[in-house]
Amino acid sequence: MVSKNQIKLITSLQHKKFRTEHQLFIAEGVKVIQELLASNFVLEHLFETEAIFEQVSISQKTVIKEADMKRITALSSASSCLAIFKIPSPTKIDTKGLIVALDDIRDPGNLGTIIRLCDWFGVTQLLCSYETVDVYNPKVIQATMGSISRVKINYVDLNDYVLQSSLPVFGTFMDGKNLYKETLPKEAILILGNEANGISASLEKSIKNRIAIPRFGDIQKTESLNVATAAAIFLSEFRRESES
Amino acid sequence: MVSKNQIKLITSLQHKKFRTEHQLFIAEGVKVIQELLASNFVLEHLFETEAIFEQVSISQKTVIKEADMKRITALSSASSCLAIFKIPSPTKIDTKGLIVALDDIRDPGNLGTIIRLCDWFGVTQLLCSYETVDVYNPKVIQATMGSISRVKINYVDLNDYVLQSSLPVFGTFMDGKNLYKETLPKEAILILGNEANGISASLEKSIKNRIAIPRFGDIQKTESLNVATAAAIFLSEFRRESES
Repeated sequence: MVSKNQIKLITSLQHKKFRTEHQLFIAEGVKVIQELLASNFVLEHLFETEAIFEQVSISQKTVIKEADMKRITALSSASSCLAIFKIPSPTKIDTKGLIVALDDIRDPGNLGTIIRLCDWFGVTQLLCSYETVDVYNPKVIQATMGSISRVKINYVDLNDYVLQSSLPVFGTFMDGKNLYKETLPKEAILILGNEANGISASLEKSIKNRIAIPRFGDIQKTESLNVATAAAIFLSEFRRESES
Repeated sequence: MVSKNQIKLITSLQHKKFRTEHQLFIAEGVKVIQELLASNFVLEHLFETEAIFEQVSISQKTVIKEADMKRITALSSASSCLAIFKIPSPTKIDTKGLIVALDDIRDPGNLGTIIRLCDWFGVTQLLCSYETVDVYNPKVIQATMGSISRVKINYVDLNDYVLQSSLPVFGTFMDGKNLYKETLPKEAILILGNEANGISASLEKSIKNRIAIPRFGDIQKTESLNVATAAAIFLSEFRRESES
């Protein structure tokens, strides 16, 4: 069973303040937990409604009732398992390759989807501005489908980072140059902006290459693409050059 | 105020059975309602918590309290407006151009995002298998951000449709040919499959051109892309040929 103190701790981890305090986060669902267990993440404790993960030692897991799972889950419908993992210490930022940088992405689903896209396209370094939603938010972890174990994520001052980097900087703007006609290098920083406001004015100043996805529909009416679907298209374009 | 009968009707429209029975659907939020009002959709009635849509005649709208809006909304946090629209009669299917076909897409958010993508990339005809989530599901309407007013959507037997069409048929498969190396025609049917199982076996038989997005990350581990982000990449590739 789950003790009152455990319930209190686990539900508190839905909030960033307590994740930071305890240096712990929660992950739910077989697939996500499986991927995290197979990676460098360190398990603190596992709760399951039936025996699922044989590789986890008895001292590190508790079988609980479905009713108890419903009390600790952060999901609208509980899964069969919930794990508490340690938040890893930040690692050194990769300075080579294609680096994706997020300027104030607020929606957890968008961040999770972008992490999954980075994983698919072999982007191993993701940078987030301090205003970007916390990667250990349960909804982000959920949306990554476990790919968070293969993408390094660092929170930085993007303005400072971009200024000191020697990589070419590409920013995505509604009025940027036609993406399909630009030569996109293998190594670069690709910046995506906030869902409502795009890239912030202060960061915009440091961006030399402004790119956009051309619009084929009614130019007057179609407003914008969701940032995660836009990220899919930008990453595909950066990678296709090495393929075609 | 909202009468008990109105509340009963409006909340019933969250279910396909009652949408079919009444031939009505609900839309929420200023942007979505604005786009639908500016299109061919026929308004049945509008509820708003303050005067927002001046163009709607007094007989067709009711100002209600926020507490009442909370009782009728299908969203987790209510907007300032909710409108009931008539479900339009099905129109003739376009047989030319780039047509997107969805084989059993279950997630409302995915369908909505794909409609928005079709709008962006100038795809005016979307076909859905009968098993695909209903386009008038409130969550779909929400995710389209109003672009549903610019994309024609028909529910059909995809097997029958594909067999009788003269357009080349492209299907998206994990083991398909490298998308970046294929010549993609301007006119085609592009089929996307179910979130978990992909394109159904019966439909697969009719597909000559099997395409896939190459994977750049760890081939052993990265499992798949979300169908909406995959749709973004496929549509971008089909359209870029006319641009670059």
